[in-house]
Order: sequence, then structure tokens, then C-alpha cells
Amino acid sequence: MQISKRIEAMQFSPIRKLVPFAEAAKKQGKKVYHLNIGQPDIETPQEFFDAVKNFDAKVLEYAFSQGIPELIDSFIEYYKLFDLNYEKDEILITNGGSEAVFFALVATCDYGDEVLVPEPFYTNYNSFSKSAGAVVVPVATSAENGFKLPDISVFESKITPKTKAIMLSNPGNPTGACYDMADMEKIKNLAIKHDLYIIADEVYKEMIYDGHKFTSFTQMEGLEERVILTDSISKRYSACGARIGCVASKNKALMAQILKLCQGRLCVATIEQIGAAALARVAPSYMENVVKEYEKRRNVCFAALQEMEGVTCQKPNGAFYIMADLPVKDTDDFCEWLLKEFHVNNETVMFAPGSGFYATEGKGKNQIRISYVLEEESLKKAMNVLKEALKAYNK
Amino acid sequence: MQISKRIEAMQFSPIRKLVPFAEAAKKQGKKVYHLNIGQPDIETPQEFFDAVKNFDAKVLEYAFSQGIPELIDSFIEYYKLFDLNYEKDEILITNGGSEAVFFALVATCDYGDEVLVPEPFYTNYNSFSKSAGAVVVPVATSAENGFKLPDISVFESKITPKTKAIMLSNPGNPTGACYDMADMEKIKNLAIKHDLYIIADEVYKEMIYDGHKFTSFTQMEGLEERVILTDSISKRYSACGARIGCVASKNKALMAQILKLCQGRLCVATIEQIGAAALARVAPSYMENVVKEYEKRRNVCFAALQEMEGVTCQKPNGAFYIMADLPVKDTDDFCEWLLKEFHVNNETVMFAPGSGFYATEGKGKNQIRISYVLEEESLKKAMNVLKEALKAYNK
Repeated sequence: MQISKRIEAMQFSPIRKLVPFAEAAKKQGKKVYHLNIGQPDIETPQEFFDAVKNFDAKVLEYAFSQGIPELIDSFIEYYKLFDLNYEKDEILITNGGSEAVFFALVATCDYGDEVLVPEPFYTNYNSFSKSAGAVVVPVATSAENGFKLPDISVFESKITPKTKAIMLSNPGNPTGACYDMADMEKIKNLAIKHDLYIIADEVYKEMIYDGHKFTSFTQMEGLEERVILTDSISKRYSACGARIGCVASKNKALMAQILKLCQGRLCVATIEQIGAAALARVAPSYMENVVKEYEKRRNVCFAALQEMEGVTCQKPNGAFYIMADLPVKDTDDFCEWLLKEFHVNNETVMFAPGSGFYATEGKGKNQIRISYVLEEESLKKAMNVLKEALKAYNK
Repeated sequence: MQISKRIEAMQFSPIRKLVPFAEAAKKQGKKVYHLNIGQPDIETPQEFFDAVKNFDAKVLEYAFSQGIPELIDSFIEYYKLFDLNYEKDEILITNGGSEAVFFALVATCDYGDEVLVPEPFYTNYNSFSKSAGAVVVPVATSAENGFKLPDISVFESKITPKTKAIMLSNPGNPTGACYDMADMEKIKNLAIKHDLYIIADEVYKEMIYDGHKFTSFTQMEGLEERVILTDSISKRYSACGARIGCVASKNKALMAQILKLCQGRLCVATIEQIGAAALARVAPSYMENVVKEYEKRRNVCFAALQEMEGVTCQKPNGAFYIMADLPVKDTDDFCEWLLKEFHVNNETVMFAPGSGFYATEGKGKNQIRISYVLEEESLKKAMNVLKEALKAYNK
């Protein structure tokens, strides 16, 4: 009676594996700043909660497998803001962006098939691909180079007959990097030349700073059938707990297949879908304020990091993460130590160790991912804890 | 750019694939009785809705990956009613029973590994196993024999080095059969002898009729480490849309591994968990009334079927399904015809065609699964539609 090899090979989430130490620290009375997880402190729009409170059915029934029509319509309207015209059968509601990515992998890959992924990448691509039996093939990018994509020949050197897709988040998690047109053209050409899908994870598409212009893979001509968009309301509406996302593609044949997966798990939670559908009524000023707030936080966080000896990082122009190199050998140990041993005025901070964002063994050991999801004062205090911690840890 | 072979090989849900025809019938003004899906018309306890309405956080945050503590505690209390003592780290909250089954498969099977399943079986075992890369190996049971399990030698003839588990629903979906101790001992002996897990899907455990006594695989001595329980609140609290279930096992090493899968998809919807936790306060009389109601419906449905010429079925003693043999060659065609062509006083009925509940090609073609989830009067009308339809279809 064995446990499967694939689940044993899976890692615990670097974002969540230190939670027991954080809980223990809190029990000791320490305050813990959570910069480990993309859980914003920004208020969820009241429209969501009002819709939930107004739900008055007597029976909490299954929803349609593809999602409730009002929610699909609201995604259709939302994408029109980006000059994208999706039809009703080109969008399927999922349990967050997570399920969208998993479904995209199952639909494009058989067991052992490969997916090219610029590294570092969103850590859970590892668990989704292991569950789905697909293999993540990492393509290195580096902070020094602003996480820009390498030459197309580097991607091509990794292509085998089993390569089925390129998967990437844009803006990037954990890098905060937003791809420019040169990078996007690279991916486009590669996908066309080698007949690959592009799994485009664009859940942070609103969080763009410094006047950078975001382009979606879905907007690029000639990619209509190739792009599988995975999206979520979690970040843009600070509604992570709703677990509402979608998978969308103009490739109707593919979407018809993914519907089978939706039917298999029956439906996404009904009440949360009703709440999410109401977000279509949120004023545009909500998002404008959110983006301004994150840009300010990024600046606070980045400025603080620049003043710490031995810490290097790029100023990211998207999402709400900074991937920073620390002057420590093993950030897994350092992050655990922060929770177990260290505090400044009984306060400490939690980060996600960098190694979990790599598939390449040994990489990221001196990095952390910082989620700048807390308001300015908390962020400043957390950064001060980090500064003092680095001094103490390296003694 | 191909679609994966496994998703192409997946079937559309027999429970849901006719939905477009049902929607079209409704647009034409027809009333459709939905006996295709296990969606009860029984009211969800008010405690659920009250808890949802009282949710007053400003930010809809991620929940813990393992589930919110109140909900885990409520499952622990619930299992105590069955003399089962689970600890906190032996229960993980899932997106309905669906995700629980999927997680159990990923944790026990590598790609190509096999799971023995008495046939007919819950149709979505097919899609979960294809997603997970596990292979369902059907073991035939038949209505004439009350869906009792065959001799242990029949199971053993199917065992290979790749066999990792036995999976079964008890009471059975779609059979309505509740296993007796002789059958359960068979499974126990087989699992011990061949070192297999038992994935016990017991979401209908309350729906037991005629004074039959239900025994859970979790209650059997000597199986503590082998049994993986998959459960859901969907049926017992008529809360299908909540998508709240759990996977539970006394095998702590296994549960620690499954936590990785929970972390990968981050969490289950927060608000629905809060609603589900409140169900612990529902009076026992709720469930007693529900069971009485289903027993009455089963009697109505079974009596009506017995009076139809050429229809045969067993009187099931659990769940809320009847698997009936109809005097037609192809129930896929018949069920579609019911929606597209037939009506009695502008009313028709929707069933799940039987073939989708089999892995063996060609089986179940003359069967339907009837979900007796509607109140008596609707059920009588729906049965009358079936009676008249059989006469008309066979002309």
C-alpha cells in the first residue's frame, strides 16, 4: 500500500508550508506580517457581499457546469474593455485561476507531455502539472536581466516531440515583470513555428505601473486558436476566498473538450458565483485606486530593499511581488528562523522562500518572494524587520 | 496543436450532456421534470443561509488550504455519530466529494495505475480517473442480483501489479444498493490480501431505507490505514451548490501528502465553508424527515415503474437512485427524444442514460438512472410521462 510517486515528488507550497510556524509565533503573542502570500488587505467591493446577502433561494442548487450565465456575461463584458470579444461558449467558470490552469494542462497534455515555462514561475504550476502528469520544462530568466525572456534559440533547445505548450504568467508571479512586445513576439513566433499552445496566466493584468502598457496574448493577431487564457477575480477584486476564475479561448473545439472537465466536477460554488457576477457593477474608480495603492506599496517596498546591504532586486512594473536576492545561503532556513526565533518589538514577517518557484534543483536558494499586499505602515514595519533580521541572522 | 488524447477519450457527463435539449424544451414552453441529476428539491437548512448572511468581513480572504477549523471540527463531531474519531489532521475540506475522489486517486495512483470499481458506478469516476491518469477497471454487478458484489475470485482475476485501490460508493450511485456485511468483508479481505486502498464514497450514508443498517468501511477493524473516505454535504443537507466535501483517513502519512494538493489549489470557497460549518447546529429531525421523504419517493417511483410493461428494476435500499432497464434499445436516443419530441400536456422528463455509468463498452444501453429527488406529485407526473413515452416511442 504505497503512496503515489508523483505526490511524494510534489513539494509543499513555499507560500504556505511555513504556516504552522507562523501560527505558533502568533500563539506566542508575536505579530506576523504576511508578505508570503498574495492575500491583499484591500477591501473586496461591497457589491460582492450585497449580492451574497441578497441570495434568497430555499435550495442551494448546483449551478451549470460552465458557470452561471450572469457571471459568464460579466466576464464577456469585462474582456470588451481589452477589445476582446468572447462568445458564451468560449468562457468556462473555474474554481479560481488554479483550476483554469489545471484544466488547460489536462486538455493539452497527455501523460509525460512537456510544457515550457520561464523560470522562476508561479509555484503551483508544479503541483498542477504533477497532478495532471505533465512535465514543467523550465527556461531560465534572471533578475539581473529584468526577467526578460532569453533568445528564441534557448526555448528551441528545450523543445521535444512531447512539447505541447508554453505557459507563463504576465505580469509575472513571482517576478513582477511585465513582458514587452519583443518578448511577446518571441513567444508568438515560437508557438506558431512549433505548433504549441500558449497558456496565458493573466490574473494580474490590471496591476501595471510606471505607465507601462500591458498587452495580452489574447490580443495578438494570429494566435486566436493557440491562446488559452487563465484568469481570476481573486487579485483584481481582492476576492481570493471566492475561488472564482475562468478559462477562456477562441478555440471552440478545445473549449468544448474542457467542458467535460467542468461537468466532471459538477460546478463551481453557486453563491460565490452570484457574488462575483455582481462585480460587473463596481465603478472603474475602484480598480484605479487599487492600482495606485499597489504602485505606492511597490515604491515603499523597493526603496526599503535598496537600502539593505547585500540585497539586490529589480524594480518590477507589474503584479504585486518582488523577487529579491538576500545575502543568506538558504532562505528556507532564514524564513523559518524569522518566524521561530526573530522579532523586532514582538513583530516578525513571513516571506515565501525562493526555491519553490523553480523547477531547476538548487536555484532560488538565496531568494525570497515578497508580496507587497499590506498597507504602507505595515509594509514599512515589515521591511524594517527584514533589515534587522538580516543583520542578526548573518552574525 | 492537438487536443490531449485523454480529454478526447473522456465522455460528456450522461447526467448533464442533454442539458441543451432540456433548455431548448423549456424555451418552447415545456415543463421538464429533472430526474437526471441528484439535485434534490428539499430545502437547505436555514442555518447555512443565516451564516452566509452574517458573514461580515471586509476582505474575502483565502481560507486555510486544509479548510477552516470550524468546518473541520464540525465534520469531526458529525463522524462521532458513527463512532468514528477523526483528528484534525485526518480531515481535509474539498470542493465537494468530486475533489475528494480526485485527490484520493492522485495520492494512490501513478499514471497507468489501476483502480477496481464495481460497475455500474458513479459516472464521474471516469473523468476523475482520466484527469488523474488512473485506469478504472470495472467489475460487473447486475440488477437481477441486486448489484451484490461477485465472488472475490472475480475481483482477483482483474488484479495486476498496477492495481492500487478499490473504489466504490455505498450506498451506491447509480444503483441505490447498500452493501451488506458479506460484501463488505469481501472488499476488506481483498484489500488486505492484495495490499490495496479502499476509496469509500459514502455521500449517501444517511439515505437508508426499510430499516437496513448502514456500515461504513471506516468502521471496519483492521482497515484503519487503508480506507480513504470521500464525503460531501451536498446530499444530506441538500446543499449541492455549496461544493463542500472532505477527504478523511486515519492514514496520517497519506493525509499529509494530500495536503500538498490542497495547498496547490489554495483553498475551498470561504463563504460556503462558513455556511457549511453552521450545519452542525441543524436539529437531527431535519435528517430524519429527509430520509422519510426519500423513502416515500422511492416507493412512489418504484411502484410506478413496476406497472410499466417491459420495465425491470430492483427496489433499492439506499441513496436516491433507481437504475431501471427499459424496453428500448438505446436510452441515449430515448432520453434525447423525450426532450425534443415528446410531451404529455406540455410536460416531459429528463433522465440520465445508463451507458455513461459503465466503463465496459456497450453496457447499460437499455438502462436509465432515475433520481427520485422531486416531491411526490411531480414524481408521479414524471413517471406518467415515462409510461406514455415508452408506449409512443416503441410504436
